[in-house]
Amino acid sequence: MNTWGRLFRVTTWGESHGPATGAVIDGCPAGLRITPEDIQKELDRRRPGQSSVTTQRSESDTAQILSGIFEDKTLGTPISIIIQNEDVDSRTYDELRYVPRPGHADYTFQAKYGWRDHRGGGRASARETAARVAAGAIAKQLLALRDIRVLGHVVEIHGIQSKFVFESPEDLMLAERSIVRCCDAAASDEMVACVERMKKAGDSVGGIAEIVAFNVPTGVGEPVFGKLDAELAKALMSVGAVKAVEIGAGFRSARLKGTEMNDPFTAKGGQVETKTNKAGGILGGISTGAPVVCRIAVKPTPSVGMQQTSINVETLQEVDLSISGRHDPCILPRIVPVAEAMVALVLADLMIQGGLINPARV
Amino acid sequence: MNTWGRLFRVTTWGESHGPATGAVIDGCPAGLRITPEDIQKELDRRRPGQSSVTTQRSESDTAQILSGIFEDKTLGTPISIIIQNEDVDSRTYDELRYVPRPGHADYTFQAKYGWRDHRGGGRASARETAARVAAGAIAKQLLALRDIRVLGHVVEIHGIQSKFVFESPEDLMLAERSIVRCCDAAASDEMVACVERMKKAGDSVGGIAEIVAFNVPTGVGEPVFGKLDAELAKALMSVGAVKAVEIGAGFRSARLKGTEMNDPFTAKGGQVETKTNKAGGILGGISTGAPVVCRIAVKPTPSVGMQQTSINVETLQEVDLSISGRHDPCILPRIVPVAEAMVALVLADLMIQGGLINPARV
Amino acid sequence: MNTWGRLFRVTTWGESHGPATGAVIDGCPAGLRITPEDIQKELDRRRPGQSSVTTQRSESDTAQILSGIFEDKTLGTPISIIIQNEDVDSRTYDELRYVPRPGHADYTFQAKYGWRDHRGGGRASARETAARVAAGAIAKQLLALRDIRVLGHVVEIHGIQSKFVFESPEDLMLAERSIVRCCDAAASDEMVACVERMKKAGDSVGGIAEIVAFNVPTGVGEPVFGKLDAELAKALMSVGAVKAVEIGAGFRSARLKGTEMNDPFTAKGGQVETKTNKAGGILGGISTGAPVVCRIAVKPTPSVGMQQTSINVETLQEVDLSISGRHDPCILPRIVPVAEAMVALVLADLMIQGGLINPARV
Amino acid sequence: MNTWGRLFRVTTWGESHGPATGAVIDGCPAGLRITPEDIQKELDRRRPGQSSVTTQRSESDTAQILSGIFEDKTLGTPISIIIQNEDVDSRTYDELRYVPRPGHADYTFQAKYGWRDHRGGGRASARETAARVAAGAIAKQLLALRDIRVLGHVVEIHGIQSKFVFESPEDLMLAERSIVRCCDAAASDEMVACVERMKKAGDSVGGIAEIVAFNVPTGVGEPVFGKLDAELAKALMSVGAVKAVEIGAGFRSARLKGTEMNDPFTAKGGQVETKTNKAGGILGGISTGAPVVCRIAVKPTPSVGMQQTSINVETLQEVDLSISGRHDPCILPRIVPVAEAMVALVLADLMIQGGLINPARV
Repeated sequence: MNTWGRLFRVTTWGESHGPATGAVIDGCPAGLRITPEDIQKELDRRRPGQSSVTTQRSESDTAQILSGIFEDKTLGTPISIIIQNEDVDSRTYDELRYVPRPGHADYTFQAKYGWRDHRGGGRASARETAARVAAGAIAKQLLALRDIRVLGHVVEIHGIQSKFVFESPEDLMLAERSIVRCCDAAASDEMVACVERMKKAGDSVGGIAEIVAFNVPTGVGEPVFGKLDAELAKALMSVGAVKAVEIGAGFRSARLKGTEMNDPFTAKGGQVETKTNKAGGILGGISTGAPVVCRIAVKPTPSVGMQQTSINVETLQEVDLSISGRHDPCILPRIVPVAEAMVALVLADLMIQGGLINPARV
Repeated sequence: MNTWGRLFRVTTWGESHGPATGAVIDGCPAGLRITPEDIQKELDRRRPGQSSVTTQRSESDTAQILSGIFEDKTLGTPISIIIQNEDVDSRTYDELRYVPRPGHADYTFQAKYGWRDHRGGGRASARETAARVAAGAIAKQLLALRDIRVLGHVVEIHGIQSKFVFESPEDLMLAERSIVRCCDAAASDEMVACVERMKKAGDSVGGIAEIVAFNVPTGVGEPVFGKLDAELAKALMSVGAVKAVEIGAGFRSARLKGTEMNDPFTAKGGQVETKTNKAGGILGGISTGAPVVCRIAVKPTPSVGMQQTSINVETLQEVDLSISGRHDPCILPRIVPVAEAMVALVLADLMIQGGLINPARV
Repeated sequence: MNTWGRLFRVTTWGESHGPATGAVIDGCPAGLRITPEDIQKELDRRRPGQSSVTTQRSESDTAQILSGIFEDKTLGTPISIIIQNEDVDSRTYDELRYVPRPGHADYTFQAKYGWRDHRGGGRASARETAARVAAGAIAKQLLALRDIRVLGHVVEIHGIQSKFVFESPEDLMLAERSIVRCCDAAASDEMVACVERMKKAGDSVGGIAEIVAFNVPTGVGEPVFGKLDAELAKALMSVGAVKAVEIGAGFRSARLKGTEMNDPFTAKGGQVETKTNKAGGILGGISTGAPVVCRIAVKPTPSVGMQQTSINVETLQEVDLSISGRHDPCILPRIVPVAEAMVALVLADLMIQGGLINPARV
Repeated sequence: MNTWGRLFRVTTWGESHGPATGAVIDGCPAGLRITPEDIQKELDRRRPGQSSVTTQRSESDTAQILSGIFEDKTLGTPISIIIQNEDVDSRTYDELRYVPRPGHADYTFQAKYGWRDHRGGGRASARETAARVAAGAIAKQLLALRDIRVLGHVVEIHGIQSKFVFESPEDLMLAERSIVRCCDAAASDEMVACVERMKKAGDSVGGIAEIVAFNVPTGVGEPVFGKLDAELAKALMSVGAVKAVEIGAGFRSARLKGTEMNDPFTAKGGQVETKTNKAGGILGGISTGAPVVCRIAVKPTPSVGMQQTSINVETLQEVDLSISGRHDPCILPRIVPVAEAMVALVLADLMIQGGLINPARV
């Protein structure tokens, strides 16, 4: 199932070592100004090889628009975006044809489909998220018309925690100055050192990222099965390596009392507001008007250089495995734009579903 | 959006203080044996008034089957189930018509739809989950044909943790002996005491529940947007009061190294297996064959007797609010069957989507 | 698949001889005034036993609203409507358990699902359309806010053609004066005589009905797979006994030249219009603003008293069959409100999808 | 809405004068052998410039596969197909920027989306159907595994009727020998002469095509809203220029008596069959096992050289219009492979939905 959304629909396609990857965005209202640069800007944030802590696979990740945009404005017809795969080196994968890498989807794809494209993870590669980011760039552009901004930052890597507290969208822009996308400069340095240490050791680390959507109006979300938090949880959990999603106080809420958890209502400037935002901007699956706050737990990249045990699925013999290739020792910095894209896709779709953005034209 | 699922589809309806609530299950294969008792058994586990730690609203929650089942077997046509609302007392809600209760969906429903059924939370009431449980009972029956069992237990309430470690489905059946559905008897006693203390104080508490699906075959899940973990996250997050979902090691995985997180493959009896299950039975969004393990963080019930601050949405004046009514001081024991139902709905739908259950007839 | 629609969604349920039949309407905007009478009025037009040319099964077809409407206005939550089955006499069906009636769905249900509710056609009975009409009544009410009216009439029965030409919605109201719902009084008399003759002979007849939607604004329809004409064709063809659907000039257009078929554009009162309407109000799958005109070919009711040949599916022996029961000798008069309902459901859903009706509230 | 299907899903994209057009096929089972030639073969049947009676636009219509197929077999992942637009000449369209062509979708796209790609009809061009045919080629390959064949022929052009009666799939292969795809050689000659006469006169003609699916097993179709005939009607009506769809006896059934219309059941070789096939292979929306027979009425191509009246949508002044460009004087021969493709897409999707084809792998 490679389509996301009910009205703002995104279909992604592409294997890691195939000729290209891409997305079709269907249901984007007509009249929205989109330039290739709007898309490229976001792709560059996800691009491999952007720093010393990411994979060295060298992809320009240039997006080409094949339909749906005419004279730099959307037509209301499907927008087809294609990204060529350039730096494909499939040789290192030959020995993996029958040996599933631990922690990867190799085995489950084999079991489900009977065979698989074993080169670079095929469809289950993180490469698939490039198409999501391209589509997310269009969703962000659409949301920008309503002043909505979706921004992410890394709040923890391998136990090292950011102490940064944000108040405005501008605060979170600081993350772009750090190669691990952490707004807390001291923590960022520590995180970078940790990741480089792991890389050298042939191991990998995980962490936590936080995504915030600012200026989401009240009324976004479709109870009871299309609740905003439910859609966000699905969207974020659909990103490879994500093992948990929380909204607002999340797991912390399990230890609070009702009187501590409930955000009291008040009025400010003629508008109803909550005094605190432990709910993370969502009540009953509908946005309250406060910032929507999600956090994702990201597991360490499964591709590690250290020796691991696996099995040959044909012979059922155990084999020792040491993954060479070019891999991210920590996916957190590159997952931030992907998670932002998913949040933007959810919001664009639900805003249209809720009548807050006109589906036909902006 | 009140329909769940692509092939095994469940539509729920009903307000808390309306005449009835119900579900239509469409896409259940023909020939499945279902008796009213199969449904009632599950509804009784969710029923209010089942113990001293749940709300005292008295509902028999008797399910009546109106279609889709003939001579105790499914026809392949939509199954309509209705549950009458019996113990409705709307008087205490009159003062809440314009005053949204903190932590509830009152304000967001008002903002989205322009008005609302203010009696007992209307559609946003936990009463809505009775229909989910009824539908889940049918999904469980369908999964039982493949020996799949979905079982839940409470692992934490207000910081009190269960030390119970399960190995088999039978182990988790122990939860039914505890009124807080905790398998660890000592922790259970502590939890009960805690909840009763909170109830007396007019406050409420949250906690964590774990749901496990045993004997799920490999191959369940539809990458990249219908991944098993993504669907589970959405399904569980769509339940009121759930603020976080994790799969397998979940948030803990953020602190592990790759070599610690990866479950090594091995073979046992001619079958590929993993030696550990930190992945929680899912890789690349597809089941591995190991137990599927999810945990949900549940916030404290927002209805508390202690005084809170809110606002009259008409006058924008702050008002003090003390919620009387009959409420659960802790929803954990009653949320377990609801969460199990959602996991069962996800599995039934994805099993059919993956060709592992025939959609037309069993 | 018993749900219609993407945003304005209708799920129907119920077997002919089960306890009840019903519909859940999900996605109806909040704040729409709906009384039980609005629904009853339409059900009465479809009701069996309304005249000498319909079946004598006696059903009051009383709709009961169980959710989604509070103080006579929609809440934005699912509207559950139930219609009890009253005059159920299943005895005459016992001999049909293993003998599929020619022209009925008995055999195909048996083949698909492995068994069936053989009493009165089960789910494949025309009784199923009562739920569609109830849902359609709500769609009509919603469309009425935009002055859209959906009206149908019978234009042919067994070759007897109506010569009536309509110009306004009011013209088509004349159909309600005729028990065969034909606006041409002379043709109506002939049709009635024909149907009564067939009834006496134990045979049945078919015909053609035309449904017109007035005041549909331009812009309704979602190319390329959700085109207005495509959705109408599906909706109308989903009604039992319908064997063909045409839009505008329909089959006649196959014999016209381009210069004859093309409706020239002009302007009137500052609005673009077409001088003729051979397109039936739809170009490129999107409404033009002219009346939307559909016609359906309806086969003769398959239940006939005359002796027919069938087979016992268990023994594979041929058997002679004469269907007693109470059946419509011609379904045309009763199919008109059903077809109107389907057109209304299509329009309500596509109006919302196109941003022409707000999905959250009226 | 540019996605077709529930499980076997096809998303098409592309404007007539944009850089390319294409399709993403998602949900095709893994392990299906597909070569570029399988796709090309079908594209060549739809290709412009294939004979004297089609448009002279010169497109090689070469399909390139970008994902989802590895070592000539499907992976179970989305299959992305791209077809470059080569012979694009947009100059003749400049004067049409504000003048909608009668019978075309120019005006309705303008009205719905606020603006449009005016070059060559944009998304509403018949060029869009190339992507459908490419996707249909894959569906046909999948259906071939079950011996299902979908074949079409032209049965009428501008009143000239084919007298051909088919008995087997092979009979219909004859259509490929005629440049108007008519199996009756004499009628074919007459049709060709008629089309060439119209072309010379600067006019166009319509006609009727028939599509037949052979060897469809019983059980295909999902009542009550996903009936086989309903899905076929939608699929076929979604093709530009189609104004009517009929199944089996279609409009003729409106004039038959029940005793004439009902196909009697019998048994042959231990199988239940019908003695006749007036139902067109469908009862109650489910296939009977007999050939599935559909006919479509196709309007004359709206692009005609003769002078027509339209309007400038900016000035609202009437203008005389004579369409130059390169157009089909009769679209019937080229619509046959498109209609076949749509029938194949419907069958592939419903076969999977009904459990008759495994969704994961062949």
